[in-house]
Amino acid sequence: MNVVRIGIIGIGNMGSAHANNIFQGKVDNLILTAVCDIDESKLLWAKQTLDEQVSIYTDYHLLLKSGLVDAVLIATPHKLHPIIAIDAFAAKLHVLTEKPAGTNTLQVRRMNELAKKSGKIFAIMYNQRTNPMFAHLKKLVEDGELGEMKRFVWIISNWYRTQAYYDSGEWRASWNGEGGGVLLNQCPHNLDIWQWITGMPTKIRSFCKYGHFHSINVEDDVTILAEYANSATAVFITSTGEYPGTNRLEYSGTRGKAVIEDGILKIYRLEADEREICYKSKEGFPNIEVHYEEIIQERPETGHIGILQNFTNAILYDEDLLAPGNEGIYGLTISNAAYMSDWLDTWVDIPMDEKLFSQMLGERQIKEKEVTIKNEDSKEGIDGEYKERWQVRW
Amino acid sequence: MNVVRIGIIGIGNMGSAHANNIFQGKVDNLILTAVCDIDESKLLWAKQTLDEQVSIYTDYHLLLKSGLVDAVLIATPHKLHPIIAIDAFAAKLHVLTEKPAGTNTLQVRRMNELAKKSGKIFAIMYNQRTNPMFAHLKKLVEDGELGEMKRFVWIISNWYRTQAYYDSGEWRASWNGEGGGVLLNQCPHNLDIWQWITGMPTKIRSFCKYGHFHSINVEDDVTILAEYANSATAVFITSTGEYPGTNRLEYSGTRGKAVIEDGILKIYRLEADEREICYKSKEGFPNIEVHYEEIIQERPETGHIGILQNFTNAILYDEDLLAPGNEGIYGLTISNAAYMSDWLDTWVDIPMDEKLFSQMLGERQIKEKEVTIKNEDSKEGIDGEYKERWQVRW
Repeated sequence: MNVVRIGIIGIGNMGSAHANNIFQGKVDNLILTAVCDIDESKLLWAKQTLDEQVSIYTDYHLLLKSGLVDAVLIATPHKLHPIIAIDAFAAKLHVLTEKPAGTNTLQVRRMNELAKKSGKIFAIMYNQRTNPMFAHLKKLVEDGELGEMKRFVWIISNWYRTQAYYDSGEWRASWNGEGGGVLLNQCPHNLDIWQWITGMPTKIRSFCKYGHFHSINVEDDVTILAEYANSATAVFITSTGEYPGTNRLEYSGTRGKAVIEDGILKIYRLEADEREICYKSKEGFPNIEVHYEEIIQERPETGHIGILQNFTNAILYDEDLLAPGNEGIYGLTISNAAYMSDWLDTWVDIPMDEKLFSQMLGERQIKEKEVTIKNEDSKEGIDGEYKERWQVRW
Repeated sequence: MNVVRIGIIGIGNMGSAHANNIFQGKVDNLILTAVCDIDESKLLWAKQTLDEQVSIYTDYHLLLKSGLVDAVLIATPHKLHPIIAIDAFAAKLHVLTEKPAGTNTLQVRRMNELAKKSGKIFAIMYNQRTNPMFAHLKKLVEDGELGEMKRFVWIISNWYRTQAYYDSGEWRASWNGEGGGVLLNQCPHNLDIWQWITGMPTKIRSFCKYGHFHSINVEDDVTILAEYANSATAVFITSTGEYPGTNRLEYSGTRGKAVIEDGILKIYRLEADEREICYKSKEGFPNIEVHYEEIIQERPETGHIGILQNFTNAILYDEDLLAPGNEGIYGLTISNAAYMSDWLDTWVDIPMDEKLFSQMLGERQIKEKEVTIKNEDSKEGIDGEYKERWQVRW
């Protein structure tokens, strides 16, 4: 095999963009052979835009069985990701899914079991992992250059959305459609990058505000506290209601600090470990020497194309996945634990009680079906600059 | 009266610095006529440094009754501030106290009652209120230029202290000596500036870590969440164990945002109110026009001398106090509520149950007397750059 034939299931905002990229040959050795959607306008778009050699399906089961694809890219509403992925592994296909892998960790665990059983590649569209700033900080931390972690603070409030955005699809910002709000739709990248850099916390305490800035059922304003095995602290602050928002990440360790803001990574290195200075110094307020370095993002992140290329290379040449499917569980665990902490008004230990979470989410989904607060004039297509949102926004 | 004669009670680190400033004539119309301390080394310092015309006392009651002073500046350990202030008002003297005014709000309420009854001036050494950056932001908020508040986040972790600092005095970092740790000693300025800019929150949820970075009984790592009457959110993060620390303050409102970091105030103004855009825009992700302005701190804060001058002018010329005594209760309320929230593991409403707080603090003080974790070789004097700490540190 020297090329991978891929089918895209769901050609809405994201899926159509992926289709364009692949169709235009932006990914080496990856060919678009099929697409699938249930929406007439999207099928029309596909007919008008894509080659005749790209088959069009309305039933994804037929796409999976068509023999036309080696792999699928799933870009449907979140709750369908696990269902379709599981069917795809059963059909012996490689799977790349949009984030989040699912809306609860039980599903993602199951997806990974079936991926393993099938022997197929399973990856997640965590395109922000291709951002050089995050990758650089991750390496600094892994190499121990900042010492042991003390604190991590991420203010990520530049996910601004209007009410029109939420009104643009019934599934948006609902417990049934997305399984949550800003944590499930906007923040999966951030939650993933957070744990990618620091590792997983051991407990979570969260405060969610539901319909705080918008007329929606789910959360659009969240503060998460987390604690680690070494008793380090993290704070994660997000909303979709602030303008202009902030994207500022700070990692503080025993040998220094790093801050990413405005696309610049600022590194403050200490010569010695602060923990030793603390107990050995005879000064109360010492001025410890700090070596400062500033790294500016020079090349753009490779983004979706980078992830698509990595997925293709993993299939063809056993290249290591940048965002393997089994890592899809981590960020999702943080958001699930954050919901449960807020609902139970207490700390949630990790690993968490996944069954209890499933049950509590289910209760919200049932209750939501009884009352809907969606505007009647909701529409699928919305204006705006969706495409700019793919890159990390500083 | 055309000059104010002042006596300083407590001439340790801070008191001796104030004595120097006044003695050297840095404050117009303010004359140092007396000092008081119980520590031999400090009395010796006073004899060697100050004029013969400055009387030296070991009993502050005698200083109050001496007839040599119109006003006192209290710079003793925190828990003595209310006791001495109350005696000073009874002696019909004006009072300027070091921060915090006391260790619980009941005391500060009492101080204000007696100040009012005596008709004397009561002010607090909130020298950071003289910082032009904070004053500028306060004015922006007051003038409504940033609209209604949505969020306030202050990461103030540049209060680094070594173990030697904590070992330098028995009273330091103890429930009996200071009534707390970083919240009571380092952060009173920040808690005051916070509420000075945003007004008081209506409830507090806090997470304190005790002896996290140091061998002490009290907290040296704190995360406070707060909520306001309009349901806005605040997060306040502090520690004395990070190096280099951060001092970054962000105010997000319906008409824009302001950030202070590195001595620079960054202002982002919107032309319209975001709350209207949110519900009227047909775009999901609009690019709202932002007017950006950057203000660099050009003149240094007037600091202690500014507060001393303002106090003097208030006595002589009825000048409005920059930090009146009745405002001493606000920052302290936040720290008291933060302790109680952590101890009770729940939200604490403001106004809070001040008697319950007093009782709970008392329990900790009694327990602490039974066990001490102080090093045996603790010493009063410590090396280091204490003087640099007076200014806002970016």
